[in-house]
Amino acid sequence: MRIHLKSEKMKEGLRNTAILLMHCPDQKGLVAAVTDFLHNNAGNIISLDQHVDRNVGQFFMRVEWELNGFAIPREKISDFFGTLIGNKFEMDWQLHFTNKLPRMVLFVSKMSHCVYDILQRYKSGEWAVDIPFIISNHENLRYIADRFEIPFHVFSINKENKAEQEAKEIQLLKNNDIDFVVLARYMQILSDDFVDQFPNQIINIHHSFLPAFKGAKPYHSAYKRGVKVIGATSHYVTADLDEGPIIAQDVVHVSHKDEIRDLVRKGKDVEKVVLSQAIWLQLQRKILPFANRTIVFD
Amino acid sequence: MRIHLKSEKMKEGLRNTAILLMHCPDQKGLVAAVTDFLHNNAGNIISLDQHVDRNVGQFFMRVEWELNGFAIPREKISDFFGTLIGNKFEMDWQLHFTNKLPRMVLFVSKMSHCVYDILQRYKSGEWAVDIPFIISNHENLRYIADRFEIPFHVFSINKENKAEQEAKEIQLLKNNDIDFVVLARYMQILSDDFVDQFPNQIINIHHSFLPAFKGAKPYHSAYKRGVKVIGATSHYVTADLDEGPIIAQDVVHVSHKDEIRDLVRKGKDVEKVVLSQAIWLQLQRKILPFANRTIVFD
Amino acid sequence: MRIHLKSEKMKEGLRNTAILLMHCPDQKGLVAAVTDFLHNNAGNIISLDQHVDRNVGQFFMRVEWELNGFAIPREKISDFFGTLIGNKFEMDWQLHFTNKLPRMVLFVSKMSHCVYDILQRYKSGEWAVDIPFIISNHENLRYIADRFEIPFHVFSINKENKAEQEAKEIQLLKNNDIDFVVLARYMQILSDDFVDQFPNQIINIHHSFLPAFKGAKPYHSAYKRGVKVIGATSHYVTADLDEGPIIAQDVVHVSHKDEIRDLVRKGKDVEKVVLSQAIWLQLQRKILPFANRTIVFD
Amino acid sequence: MRIHLKSEKMKEGLRNTAILLMHCPDQKGLVAAVTDFLHNNAGNIISLDQHVDRNVGQFFMRVEWELNGFAIPREKISDFFGTLIGNKFEMDWQLHFTNKLPRMVLFVSKMSHCVYDILQRYKSGEWAVDIPFIISNHENLRYIADRFEIPFHVFSINKENKAEQEAKEIQLLKNNDIDFVVLARYMQILSDDFVDQFPNQIINIHHSFLPAFKGAKPYHSAYKRGVKVIGATSHYVTADLDEGPIIAQDVVHVSHKDEIRDLVRKGKDVEKVVLSQAIWLQLQRKILPFANRTIVFD
Repeated sequence: MRIHLKSEKMKEGLRNTAILLMHCPDQKGLVAAVTDFLHNNAGNIISLDQHVDRNVGQFFMRVEWELNGFAIPREKISDFFGTLIGNKFEMDWQLHFTNKLPRMVLFVSKMSHCVYDILQRYKSGEWAVDIPFIISNHENLRYIADRFEIPFHVFSINKENKAEQEAKEIQLLKNNDIDFVVLARYMQILSDDFVDQFPNQIINIHHSFLPAFKGAKPYHSAYKRGVKVIGATSHYVTADLDEGPIIAQDVVHVSHKDEIRDLVRKGKDVEKVVLSQAIWLQLQRKILPFANRTIVFD
Repeated sequence: MRIHLKSEKMKEGLRNTAILLMHCPDQKGLVAAVTDFLHNNAGNIISLDQHVDRNVGQFFMRVEWELNGFAIPREKISDFFGTLIGNKFEMDWQLHFTNKLPRMVLFVSKMSHCVYDILQRYKSGEWAVDIPFIISNHENLRYIADRFEIPFHVFSINKENKAEQEAKEIQLLKNNDIDFVVLARYMQILSDDFVDQFPNQIINIHHSFLPAFKGAKPYHSAYKRGVKVIGATSHYVTADLDEGPIIAQDVVHVSHKDEIRDLVRKGKDVEKVVLSQAIWLQLQRKILPFANRTIVFD
Repeated sequence: MRIHLKSEKMKEGLRNTAILLMHCPDQKGLVAAVTDFLHNNAGNIISLDQHVDRNVGQFFMRVEWELNGFAIPREKISDFFGTLIGNKFEMDWQLHFTNKLPRMVLFVSKMSHCVYDILQRYKSGEWAVDIPFIISNHENLRYIADRFEIPFHVFSINKENKAEQEAKEIQLLKNNDIDFVVLARYMQILSDDFVDQFPNQIINIHHSFLPAFKGAKPYHSAYKRGVKVIGATSHYVTADLDEGPIIAQDVVHVSHKDEIRDLVRKGKDVEKVVLSQAIWLQLQRKILPFANRTIVFD
Repeated sequence: MRIHLKSEKMKEGLRNTAILLMHCPDQKGLVAAVTDFLHNNAGNIISLDQHVDRNVGQFFMRVEWELNGFAIPREKISDFFGTLIGNKFEMDWQLHFTNKLPRMVLFVSKMSHCVYDILQRYKSGEWAVDIPFIISNHENLRYIADRFEIPFHVFSINKENKAEQEAKEIQLLKNNDIDFVVLARYMQILSDDFVDQFPNQIINIHHSFLPAFKGAKPYHSAYKRGVKVIGATSHYVTADLDEGPIIAQDVVHVSHKDEIRDLVRKGKDVEKVVLSQAIWLQLQRKILPFANRTIVFD
């Protein structure tokens, strides 16, 4: 069945390239050092984005190059780059290979709009990603997982069993080499312990334009405040609820005619688009979080 | 000099119509009662907008009709409508005549972007409005008022003289039959007493997407939070700072590349558009504030 | 199985109201006549929107009122309104009852993004609608219909059999009391004869911001022209290809970094939102087409 | 008087940096070659953006570096870069110094909204630019130039004198070392000969979302077509009217309530923002036109 899914055309294609994401204190010669490293080893740069944040004195870069013809074997790139460049400039860096499908797990509860949106992109080949299973705290959306032939694991959570259930979830994620987690309107707050184990690997969609209307029931608050625009925010989850680094945001105009249920309806459209934007950026390895902000090389 | 301004073509034109804005507890027959009142007296309805807010059980309506041929003389409409309709349904209502230019006063400080935007619309005849003078707490922008040949009154404010200076400002506004006041990035908080004297007659532009980043330096806060969208909010001023009824809001996308000065620069474009939207709606008598929200019949 | 679908909560609810959509040459007393008709028969008006287009001298109105307590029996409203009001003012008018689910049929081809978006709203109860079956000219998306347990009829079309196949489709639609048809990226041009039988009953999504980039491959044209914004347009289908009355439009910003496949990807998000907006408006009976434009009482 | 203008604080500041804009056929080692050239001569890179368009096989880059401490004297950079890098890779390239104010001339006719918007930014120090004079084909806006104390030259144009008048304009521009020209709703088509002398140096604002509604009276066409969104397009002027490379575009939603004069009013807000965006990008040397498209390093 999973084979069936994979047999559909993967439009995005699997490039045979490598991506380096890096940041370090700013200094002269950083771009030249990295591009020399690639050029001297016959690496053809496909794209290069750099950014210097002068307020914090940090240098950020994303570079993607073709592996065909690259002089350093794939399995040694990490060692070579770290030794020759990373250590020298005291970099934080990550290396990714685009022909390896990232493994993403969805956490869901009762609302289906984001889930369908994600699975449609997955199933149609818009995204090069693997979704080995879905986790939920409720049975409600099992029928969707069934339709898409994706395993669906329910861990119902209450005050008493939360630590225990989360431990099982963490084990399941670790055992399956999950790259990142997407909370697709998952209505359960993850414990700090859970969050700490997946730094910048959990993407959430908050149904308001953060930092406005943090917490629960933002559409009710928006209605009460009489705002003329509502929004949605995708962000990495940190121990501070609704305070993690923001990845993408968008809004939609509303009016006095919109009752709360209209805000909910209109908001869902923004939520699913903004969440899928964040996932797309994550899949492209275009996000570099730093100091509770994100560099998005879009 | 003012004659010079008026001699330019007033594109908007001065219609000979009346506008009724009203609200009252919802009940059967409200629309029929008002439209009958107009129809039976040969009033041709040009536009009618109504809204029922079921959460608060209130009925809102704006109706505009032609005065040519209307059976009730202009000066008696108020008496007749109040007696026959308003009292009966316990309405709050306002009557406006479109051939009388509203009188608007600007309060400014040091930033010129909103002022120029407003004066360009005024001067080019985009808006049918009268601006008898500008008030400021600083001399900085006097040269703009001079260029547009509009009197410019400076009331510098400090802790000691605030009550006294505001009293003079209020007197000046009252003596000149001002319809409403626009705070065009006026960087001085009006006292509660001032605000109380002009309920729903003072329009402010806040340089953030309220309720996010209330208070001072919202662009600094936005930068620090790493938002991907910034905005501006025009609202009526109430005693609660940045908490008055919102009239219009809009946003612009930003990225990690935008430093604070870029947020300021991009934000100004939204500020001036959103403030001018609010003024336009006010001039058209399209705003009905109720319970800290606004009905905008746009 | 269909029962299963219906048993899910229909959040939108089924109000027991009636809606009148009407237009006629503008004249005095129209609003009063209609509101009197309702008021005199104990009809409580829930919402009333009217518009006068002075360029064409036409009056447009949408009024919704509660049927509970209305003095005229449901089955006689049409006769009474037509006789007492419609004929008198030479109106074109339609009467709808909100407790009757509209019946909508989707036409699809090979792309799934709009279909999933529509079916998710249908299935989750966001929309009060019935989708008795889906029609396609290809087998590709049958698996989606199967997942949602909706009958899927394939009519493959070629030059030779087009008239014959369309005749069958028309018959199927007529036999099933279909209210309107949605072309959800249906990649086959309907014949004039087909279109003529469903005036203002076929909604299409065009994957560009009409009137820019009419015809096939608009994203290729947009790329070639180097536009910085792409869009989508939902409209009623008329005999003139891509020239029917526009219902809704929206856009998304793009840059030089976006290749054609990126335009396609970003465009899909706009397409599905804009198509669903149009369907929502259609379900709410908020659209009045006139002279190749639409009045949208939103 | 000009001194007065300059004495206001120039917020943007004058960085002591150089900017290279370049493009050439794509090949390995381009980024490394340029960054080595800068690094080896002690040039600190402030920002670097590159783009490869695989459809046309072209490489594009913008790099900005600090001149303080750069080993090659300012006046020799051009010679050195051309000899060592430009020629080698068959580049088209431009070198700019940010401490030299660009000289921009406005062409205007009768509408003031863009002019005021531009002059407000100029006068308030938002832009680091010099505006030595304004050219018009009408006297109407002379009072604005007077207010801002900028020389205003009128060249009235008719069929007979067009070639002669344009020759004078060209002479005036050439004599004054003008960097680029902005048509701020200049309602006169420039001859091909004029355009040819300023390739990619003339920025126009078209009051529609190109390629929709090319030519005259786009708001009338937009009204007639019943679009739900209108827009504006800033672009470089080429011999093909309304067909030059697009720099920026934006839109605003409209409805059936908007008559032509409302479209004009709403459109003006988009026009001025989109034109000023283009000017800002031009001043930052962030635009690289190629093959009737623009690379915008924003």
